[in-house]
Amino acid sequence: MIIDCHGHFTTAPPALATWRERQIRAFEDSGARISPDELHITDEEIRTAIENAQLKLQRERGTDLTIFSPGAGKMAHHYGDVHTSLVWSQVSNNLIARVRDLFPDRFAAACQLPQSPGDALASSIRHSAEELERCVIDLGFVGCLLNPDPSDGYWQAPPLTDRVYYPLYEKMVELDVPAMIHVAMSRNPAIQGTCAHYLNGDTTTFMQLCESNLFTDFPTLRLILPHGGGAVPYHWGRYRGMMLDRGRPPLEEAVLRNVFFDTCVYHKPGLQLLTDTIPAHNILFASEMIGAVRSTDPETGRRFDDVKATLDTINTINKTDRQAIYGDNALRVFPRLESVLSTTKQEVAR
Amino acid sequence: MIIDCHGHFTTAPPALATWRERQIRAFEDSGARISPDELHITDEEIRTAIENAQLKLQRERGTDLTIFSPGAGKMAHHYGDVHTSLVWSQVSNNLIARVRDLFPDRFAAACQLPQSPGDALASSIRHSAEELERCVIDLGFVGCLLNPDPSDGYWQAPPLTDRVYYPLYEKMVELDVPAMIHVAMSRNPAIQGTCAHYLNGDTTTFMQLCESNLFTDFPTLRLILPHGGGAVPYHWGRYRGMMLDRGRPPLEEAVLRNVFFDTCVYHKPGLQLLTDTIPAHNILFASEMIGAVRSTDPETGRRFDDVKATLDTINTINKTDRQAIYGDNALRVFPRLESVLSTTKQEVAR
Repeated sequence: MIIDCHGHFTTAPPALATWRERQIRAFEDSGARISPDELHITDEEIRTAIENAQLKLQRERGTDLTIFSPGAGKMAHHYGDVHTSLVWSQVSNNLIARVRDLFPDRFAAACQLPQSPGDALASSIRHSAEELERCVIDLGFVGCLLNPDPSDGYWQAPPLTDRVYYPLYEKMVELDVPAMIHVAMSRNPAIQGTCAHYLNGDTTTFMQLCESNLFTDFPTLRLILPHGGGAVPYHWGRYRGMMLDRGRPPLEEAVLRNVFFDTCVYHKPGLQLLTDTIPAHNILFASEMIGAVRSTDPETGRRFDDVKATLDTINTINKTDRQAIYGDNALRVFPRLESVLSTTKQEVAR
Repeated sequence: MIIDCHGHFTTAPPALATWRERQIRAFEDSGARISPDELHITDEEIRTAIENAQLKLQRERGTDLTIFSPGAGKMAHHYGDVHTSLVWSQVSNNLIARVRDLFPDRFAAACQLPQSPGDALASSIRHSAEELERCVIDLGFVGCLLNPDPSDGYWQAPPLTDRVYYPLYEKMVELDVPAMIHVAMSRNPAIQGTCAHYLNGDTTTFMQLCESNLFTDFPTLRLILPHGGGAVPYHWGRYRGMMLDRGRPPLEEAVLRNVFFDTCVYHKPGLQLLTDTIPAHNILFASEMIGAVRSTDPETGRRFDDVKATLDTINTINKTDRQAIYGDNALRVFPRLESVLSTTKQEVAR
């Protein structure tokens, strides 16, 4: 079974974006709220949005299951207040649950969290723990997205290792679900989103983890760094040396028991470096389709985000490691996948 | 000749840091100024600082010349006002000129610029053009450091492609000197300096350049991205795809005529990726010694920043490309090096 651990609902029916724009505008204009009941999306619209896009590509590429979450950039946590983010998260997550219900053998669900920047950070993290519990317990989700910069491009929050985040980590540990660390949009004109802020978010978070003892406090906490870990594997020697300079334990001990890298790297030398440098145990297959890059590579004739096709050409990965990267690791990092999948199988059999 | 294009005076005599602390404190306490005349460093102190450090490592490693600039983190452009940064730049650059005068066959000089964030940005860029001219014309410098985030970790300035920077680019083109794009310190508690902010600065700037037409306006402008280009070569496919998505010209055309990557990548798979992905024409040898990482790699028995030793083990680089990376490219990107070197030779001969 080939599990793609990183997909967002970037093709959601346009009614979703319209509702969100109305929500933001109403709050900014007069502090008014828009009810989730004003959003109308039919099952047919969802089916169309998925069948012509993610599902089509899954079939073409031979991948089986995607861990599916709301559009990451569209989380846009800086808008409105705590209530704005809470309702937007519920709306987005409920839509992901509907996708999963329509295609239960093709998608598992991960939720966005109702984070907010500035003074609202602490209360937004308590709301995040509650929304995570609702999604996991009531809706059968298997993971979440955690944004290290809810200010969306200005890095106004403390590091993710700060105690303000601990109520969320306690809930994650209790529910046994991991978080993918994923920034949202950038509203900073100096920092573009998908090709700068996204990668910087991964790099910045890794260094926060290297400097902290978060995993001493939460030995079973599991975090996934997307986009191949930003700049990290390319600069693995820099991080190894920095840990030695500081008299810290080796990365294997300090970080790699808890941190995983996905494979969203869109050329062969990059995937070669990732798999040469990071232990296979710590790599999760992912393509982030349909996402940041949508073109076809004229050099290969395939889309840049067809990571599986490129990974398949790397012959330095042995069979066991390949199986770990393609699925076994995901089953370990997302333990709730197992029961979700067995329920689905029973339902399909009935 | 092997030219290391990236070295900072990280081992400067302690009197420099003491003077700087007094400068910052005096301004913060009462708006007072400290005179550069109050800084006293002897030639003997400079010799000791260099001979036991950079010069020793140059000899051990078999590199010939380092393009030497003030400590990058210590530029710390957010402190004080325009005048603070101007005087601090003059003090730092004059010290670099003294290093070069004491060891003219071992060091060429690059200057820091008196940048400032916020409302002072535009006037600080005019001061930067003047300080660049002073350093190049009066002191024989060959390049400069340009900080894409003078707010030091909060990214408060417009992108480097904004017209506010054009007076500096006009001066660079007139003087025919390149800039290494190098952030200074990070004062943001979420973003560590050398292993997050530095790499993010490189990645962020590259994307600014991809999105702009800066090189249409300045076809001969040359910029160096240090630290192997941050996350860029590892994600080369992402950038290629993004340019196609946007209907922009290929990277070779849009960026690689003007942008160069250094080799400050501290492990073999990273250097392999860099040299496999980026044309040799666009790679400049560099180690940033003595800099961000100072330990010895227990796996190789050599310091992590001994980039030359690692590059020498990569057997996929042909002789011409190796010569380009080790020196020929630097002579092309820093054309003033040629006359500096021939003057030195004549002086040595006399």
